[in-house]
This record gives sequence, C-alpha cells and structure tokens, in this order.
Amino acid sequence: MMRTPHGDIPTPVFAPVGTQATVKTLTPDELVTIGATLILANTYHLYLRPGADTIARLGDLHGFMGWPGPILTDSGGFQVFSLEGLRRVSEEGVVFRSHIDGSEHFFSPEKAVEIQEKLGADIIMVLDECPDPMDYDYNKSALERTHRWAERCLRAHTRADQALFGIVQGGVFPDLRGKSAEFLTSLGFPGYGIGGLSVGEPKDKTWEMLDVTVPLLPTHAPRYLMGVGSPEDLFEGVERGVDLFDSVLPTRLARNGGVFTSRGRINLRKAKFADDPAPIEEGCDCYTCRRFSRAYLRHLLKAGEILGLRLNTIHNLHFLVELMGRIRAAITEGSFAALKTDFLSRYVPAANDEDQRIKHLARRRGKPKRKGNA
Amino acid sequence: MMRTPHGDIPTPVFAPVGTQATVKTLTPDELVTIGATLILANTYHLYLRPGADTIARLGDLHGFMGWPGPILTDSGGFQVFSLEGLRRVSEEGVVFRSHIDGSEHFFSPEKAVEIQEKLGADIIMVLDECPDPMDYDYNKSALERTHRWAERCLRAHTRADQALFGIVQGGVFPDLRGKSAEFLTSLGFPGYGIGGLSVGEPKDKTWEMLDVTVPLLPTHAPRYLMGVGSPEDLFEGVERGVDLFDSVLPTRLARNGGVFTSRGRINLRKAKFADDPAPIEEGCDCYTCRRFSRAYLRHLLKAGEILGLRLNTIHNLHFLVELMGRIRAAITEGSFAALKTDFLSRYVPAANDEDQRIKHLARRRGKPKRKGNA
Repeated sequence: MMRTPHGDIPTPVFAPVGTQATVKTLTPDELVTIGATLILANTYHLYLRPGADTIARLGDLHGFMGWPGPILTDSGGFQVFSLEGLRRVSEEGVVFRSHIDGSEHFFSPEKAVEIQEKLGADIIMVLDECPDPMDYDYNKSALERTHRWAERCLRAHTRADQALFGIVQGGVFPDLRGKSAEFLTSLGFPGYGIGGLSVGEPKDKTWEMLDVTVPLLPTHAPRYLMGVGSPEDLFEGVERGVDLFDSVLPTRLARNGGVFTSRGRINLRKAKFADDPAPIEEGCDCYTCRRFSRAYLRHLLKAGEILGLRLNTIHNLHFLVELMGRIRAAITEGSFAALKTDFLSRYVPAANDEDQRIKHLARRRGKPKRKGNA
Repeated sequence: MMRTPHGDIPTPVFAPVGTQATVKTLTPDELVTIGATLILANTYHLYLRPGADTIARLGDLHGFMGWPGPILTDSGGFQVFSLEGLRRVSEEGVVFRSHIDGSEHFFSPEKAVEIQEKLGADIIMVLDECPDPMDYDYNKSALERTHRWAERCLRAHTRADQALFGIVQGGVFPDLRGKSAEFLTSLGFPGYGIGGLSVGEPKDKTWEMLDVTVPLLPTHAPRYLMGVGSPEDLFEGVERGVDLFDSVLPTRLARNGGVFTSRGRINLRKAKFADDPAPIEEGCDCYTCRRFSRAYLRHLLKAGEILGLRLNTIHNLHFLVELMGRIRAAITEGSFAALKTDFLSRYVPAANDEDQRIKHLARRRGKPKRKGNA
C-alpha cells in the first residue's frame, strides 16, 4: 500500500500511461471503472505542450485532466535521451530540440523538479540519463552524472506533498547496478525507480538486474520497475519484490488490435474473427466483453473506427488491473506461487519475434516522434 | 411520434449518423445518455465491409453494434452516385467499384432492399439517383428512373417489420419536385425522404423546395430531410413540416474542433482557448461540459488525442438532441415561433465562407474516399 495526497494505492500496482495528460482514448471515469488507482503522465510532453504553467493555472494535472486519483510524472529523461541527434548532454543538464517544432530547450535536474512541482503529481522522478544498456563505459560514466543529478534533484525539491523517487541505472552490469542502488539508498529517497531496463536487453538480463538491485533497496520504500507491463513480466517482477509497474504495452497493443486473453495475446485483425460472436474473453466482466463480439471489434479495426481503439484499450487495461488484484489477493493468502504457476500454465507468451516487435513498440513508451502523435 | 419495433421516436428528431455501424468515437451507451432515439447506418459501407450476411448472422445491425433502439439505413444511392468516374448507371441498376479495393459491384433496387432486409434496420430507404441539383435535364431523366426504381423497391420489399420510405428528388426545380412528391405519394409509402438537397445548392433554394414538396406529401407520414443538421437549419426544416433530420455535421465538425454554443459555433483549436478554464458552454449538462475545460479540450486537439474527438462529439450531439427536445416542447406549447426567434437572436450562424466549407464537408456525408476512413 502506498499513501498519497490523492488516495491510497494498493500494491503491487500496474499504472496505465497517460503521456499527454490522457490515457489514450479513455476518460478518467472509464479509468475509475477499470479500477486504475495510479496513472502516469510525462514531463517532457507536457512541458512542451500545453506547458507546465498552463497546467498549474488550471488546477495542476489532477484538475486539468479531471483525474482525482494519484498521478506519477516521469522526469522526461527517458524521452529526452530518446531524441537521438537532437540532444547534447553536459554536467549542467541536457539541451534538446522539441520534436514538435524544433525549438531548443534545456532540462537540468533543478528544472525537471521545478516543472514537476508545477504539474503537481503525487509521485515525481529525478532526472536521469538512460544509456544503451549493453555499453559498459557509457553506463559507467553516465551513472556518476546521474547520481550527482539525483542529489541536485533532492536539493531542488520543495513540495513536501510530492514524493520524489530516485532512479537506479547501470545497464545490464551487476557492479554498476549495485553501486547505483547503494548510492541512491544512501540519499534516502521515499521510493526507487529501476530504470534502463526493458529497453531491448535480453529478458534474462532484466531479471538478473532485478535480482541484483532489489535486495540493496530499503524494504520500506516502494520499488518501481519502469516500462514493464506484459502479464508474464508482472509475475516475474512481483516475485522479485517490485511494487509498481507502468507500460504503454496494453494501450499501444490495443490500438494495434492486440488484446490479452487468459491463453495469451490474440490479434483481432485476423480474418478468423470476422464472424466470431464470442467476446474477447468469455467470463471477462469488462465493458467491452460484456457488450461486444470479436466480429464487431474486428470490423471497427478494419474500418478504422475509433470506437475499436477505445474498446480494446478498456479490455487490456482491465485485464492487467484485474490480474494485479488477483496477485495482491494471492500474496495476502500466501498463494502467489500457485497463482503464477496456474496463470502461466495457460497463458502462452507471444512468440519471440512477435515479442521483440512489441518490446520495440514498448521501448517507445512516450518516445517522441518527429511527425504526428507521440 | 414514430413507432418502430425497437422503440418510439418522438418527432421532430435529429438522428446521429453511424455510417459504419458506429457513431464515430461513441459507444451505444453514450448515445443513450445523450438522448439519441434513432441513428443512421449506411448500406453502401456495410455491404462492402463487413458484409450484410455477416451482420445478419450476428443479430442484424442492432445486435452487431449493440444499439437497442431504432435504426434507419440509407439505401447507398447517395454514396454510389458520389463515386464519380467509378459507376455506370442503367435502367437495371448501377455498377460501381468499391472505394476500398476497387472490386466491381452492382446495386439494383431489388438488391438495395435485399441488403437492407439483412441489415435489419427499422426504417429503410429506396434506391434513388442523386444528380447535380442544378442540372434540369439530368434531374428530369433521372427522376423518371428513380420513380421506376421506387416501384421496384416496393415490390421487392418483404419484411413487414421494416418501414420502406420513398425519396423525393427533382433538384432545385419546383415542377420536378412537385411531380416527384405526387408520384411517390400515389405509391403510398409509410414515410418520405426529401433527397438531393443540402448538396451545395443555395440555402434559399433548399427552403423553396421544401415549401413546394411538403404540402404535397400526406400529413400522416413522416417527412425526412436527408443530410441536414445545423441548428439554424433544424428550425427552418421543422417550420416547414419536417419530422426527421440526419447529418454528419455535428460529429464531423466535432472531430475538427468545431463545437456548438448558444451563441454560434466556436473552434477549440484557437489560441484564445489555451488557458480558458470555462466549459464549452456554461450550464450545458453534457458530460464534456460538466467535467472538462476548453483549455483541456484544446490541448487534446492540438496533441492529436482521441479523447478530444470523443468529448467534442458528445457535446455536439447533446446540443442538437437537447435543442430538438426544446423544439418538441415548444410545438406542444404553441411557442415554436418564440423559441425560434429567441434562439436565432443569440445564435450567430457561421460566416458564409465557413458555412460553405462545412457544407462541403457535410455533403460528403458517408461519401467514400479512395484512401483511409470514410
């Protein structure tokens, strides 16, 4: 359980991503119905558009987007460092160009905190550098700077009603991860992000890094595995002590026709669903499954209709939120291992190539694109 | 009041358009909340995708799209005759190519009825030819064929639970309109569409044609002015005895940022709304106005977020449905003229050029495009 000024968050929790102050396609009321208790928003995107001052004037993020519950803002580090060829990093901070209009901007640790204080989320994140996870030298040098930036964020932070989380980095290297976890813990953050994972590295490395990192973090502070959100990965993360997950996977997948079922992902665009009167999942009590057939959902996708994106998004978020509820109940009852075995005995993870494609999509979590909508 | 197997429809009524078996961006439940009592769907689009047989197997249109109330299907004539260069008309029917894949298809009056019987709407329409409204010779010759097609539709029609409406044509020519109204009335349809208007002709011609046509139609049968739906036009139509309107204007406008207010249309994309904390319309009790500011709606539009399209659509449909409710109440109380004067004293119709641009968009009601979504 995490307590915030905008409500309690039972943990472990999966947080839907609302990059631009909207979980794509959904209203805040639909998120409440789904059972979401925490959502993410993105500092980089909101700083550029509509601007932090505008949001502050309109009742901070909660008032602006009409979401009364807890919010977490990412610092924008991940997005800025995704702007290849568009950014220049120095000890002071990072200069980058807007993906919207090419204008030049500067984020320092202090600026990232200042913006997030204006946005007013309940949980905010330090500015970090997110290097290629496989490059030891880059990770080593970036790590030291990221640690100095973490100290500067702490000093700049003034709002006692916002919890500022540190972010452990260090790529796929146990010594760097250990060093990072120990250093950040010494600073005494109220929570810790584990960043720089799920960005293309082999899956066994992801879990190895968690095995190295989590035991070094204080037990009383929530651990947040950034950018991870497939059903099978939630089990692996929870088993290793993760409290908080976020990912664009369920929402992005939904908009591409991919939906979760207890037996694995299916893609509703496939011809075999053209006359299928069944819901996505028999027995699922989400709005989509209670009301619509796979055949209708497929039609909406093929016809390019927005309602299809909405209905798939509702189902996928409901699936993960409901799964997390079952995981929490199982932990309480001491039956987590049984639930994991049972779930994974039926759930077929996507094939490796499919998984890599989706991982690639997931990597782009809020990653700015040159054209169109991020 | 119109009675249908799926419910009563208080008249006059504005019917939202759901071309592809979805009123764009909305769920059936949202349409119920808005107060919609009748929606349109389109035979041309649904015949091509997903196909009438598929829809028939999945519980006809009502079951397929999860809308329990009355539905009207357009015959597809308007769409087929919008396919310039792609169609070939003869006495027998019309050959056309799909805008989706270029495949060749044939609609006859009998086929149009057969498809609509499979789709299962409560009100279905005869197949008609929709010529350039200003071309006398074309209208004259097309009219005779359209009348023969109307007779063939009547003969082909087998389902007693569906009301088959005739469609008056004749361009902007009083003699042709009169001839058409008289001929169709002699066939004894349960309702009459007035087609071929609001397709680019001057507005005074539209009303002149209504003045000529409506008195020739039987008083007991509903009159349906096809493709008209701006607030000011609803008043003009109702005053002339129209019972039923449909138009993509409110939904299409919404997706372009245009929303109705009691003082006229505004476009939420404008910079002046960037910090505006007010709802679209003070006192409006639609979901959008109860929950969100113009500033947030503008942000969603500028950021390309689907939620903005949804929220604007909800407001615009609510605006027209609520206005129609006030018009019905005023008719009952004998105060229609006062309501019209009062409404139009505050409501500034869009400037002529803007209006022409939107009319042009409205003309494309369900008009197939070569690429993307219609």
